[in-house]
Amino acid sequence: MKKFAVVLSGCGHKDGSEITESVSTLIVLAEHGLQYEIFAPNISVPATNHLTGQPQEERSILTEAARIARGQAQDLKNLNPENFDAVVFPGGFGAALHLCSFAKDGAKCKVLPEAQKVIEAFHRAEKPIGAFCIAPALIARVLGSHGVTVTIGNDTETATEITKTGAQHVNCAVDDYISDRDFKIVTSPAYMYDANPFQVFTGIRKAIKELAEMA
Amino acid sequence: MKKFAVVLSGCGHKDGSEITESVSTLIVLAEHGLQYEIFAPNISVPATNHLTGQPQEERSILTEAARIARGQAQDLKNLNPENFDAVVFPGGFGAALHLCSFAKDGAKCKVLPEAQKVIEAFHRAEKPIGAFCIAPALIARVLGSHGVTVTIGNDTETATEITKTGAQHVNCAVDDYISDRDFKIVTSPAYMYDANPFQVFTGIRKAIKELAEMA
Repeated sequence: MKKFAVVLSGCGHKDGSEITESVSTLIVLAEHGLQYEIFAPNISVPATNHLTGQPQEERSILTEAARIARGQAQDLKNLNPENFDAVVFPGGFGAALHLCSFAKDGAKCKVLPEAQKVIEAFHRAEKPIGAFCIAPALIARVLGSHGVTVTIGNDTETATEITKTGAQHVNCAVDDYISDRDFKIVTSPAYMYDANPFQVFTGIRKAIKELAEMA
Repeated sequence: MKKFAVVLSGCGHKDGSEITESVSTLIVLAEHGLQYEIFAPNISVPATNHLTGQPQEERSILTEAARIARGQAQDLKNLNPENFDAVVFPGGFGAALHLCSFAKDGAKCKVLPEAQKVIEAFHRAEKPIGAFCIAPALIARVLGSHGVTVTIGNDTETATEITKTGAQHVNCAVDDYISDRDFKIVTSPAYMYDANPFQVFTGIRKAIKELAEMA
């Protein structure tokens, strides 16, 4: 049975993982009979009140990700790529704030060392990598110099920034995905659009099916 | 276009709404082209660390529910049943800790006044009510004396406690639902079982379809 690693960045789209994207990923992995384990960095960051947009207290990304994972979340440092057939990065602002600093620094952003290590290891092992919403920017930052192709939907400013990493950007509808079969990178725009949960689910469902076939 | 009210009790199954059940509800409502608004009580309660199970600081149920709702959560006190065709209560321990005290007090539990008011109003107006996981215990507490029928799966102890409210309990598989067509109550067991996310999604998907037909 194939096993996927899912990398979260918290719980909530303003400061962590987008919840619908994360849950859609897990639903579809289970639908295909794929096993998965969930990882998140064990660091604390300022949280954001999702009702008001105002800053909250500091929270641990790993502890909050455990809310989505029903307790079964592990430190990203312990993700051994040898134990998995594929890795998936759901979106949410956490991916562009904590896994890398793309939200602030664009194409020249820093990448969290444990995230960089994971992406490079799966790439080296020719194992597929999935990324949704803004998370493809993280993949582009790490693997852009190889000329990988990703999508974040049709936002011109973000797409232009992504191409500065060396990555190609292809526009994509919310309920669809882009597959780079040479580099085994599968991306879907999800909440980069003002979408509804079923559109997001549909795009991710198609993307995970493609990843399952690649893995 | 039919409009549903979705009542959450936080964000995370140990102290609030079960996240997969909540997201599954929203995905399927959107799939059927149903509109929805999300509500939660505006009260603060002790949170639970989902990684360790240990107590955390106090958090606002409404503010945390806004993480699932992408910011669009409203005070449960402002839910006007006249504006909606149906109401849905996803599960998670929050439904049995904060919407009522079933987790501590069983069949004689207290019910949060604004939750009681909503359930009674939808019942009086003969509008359908959905509830998943442990949330059917809340419905049983409020409407049990009418002899409504619900399911929480096959847990004998919980089912026995529910029947003390006057409600009927019928065993049900995780990926299915029980429909009380006389009282328009639709329930699905979800994470009352040690289930996977696709099983939970499947049961809720069927239950929402039934609610949509009733509404």
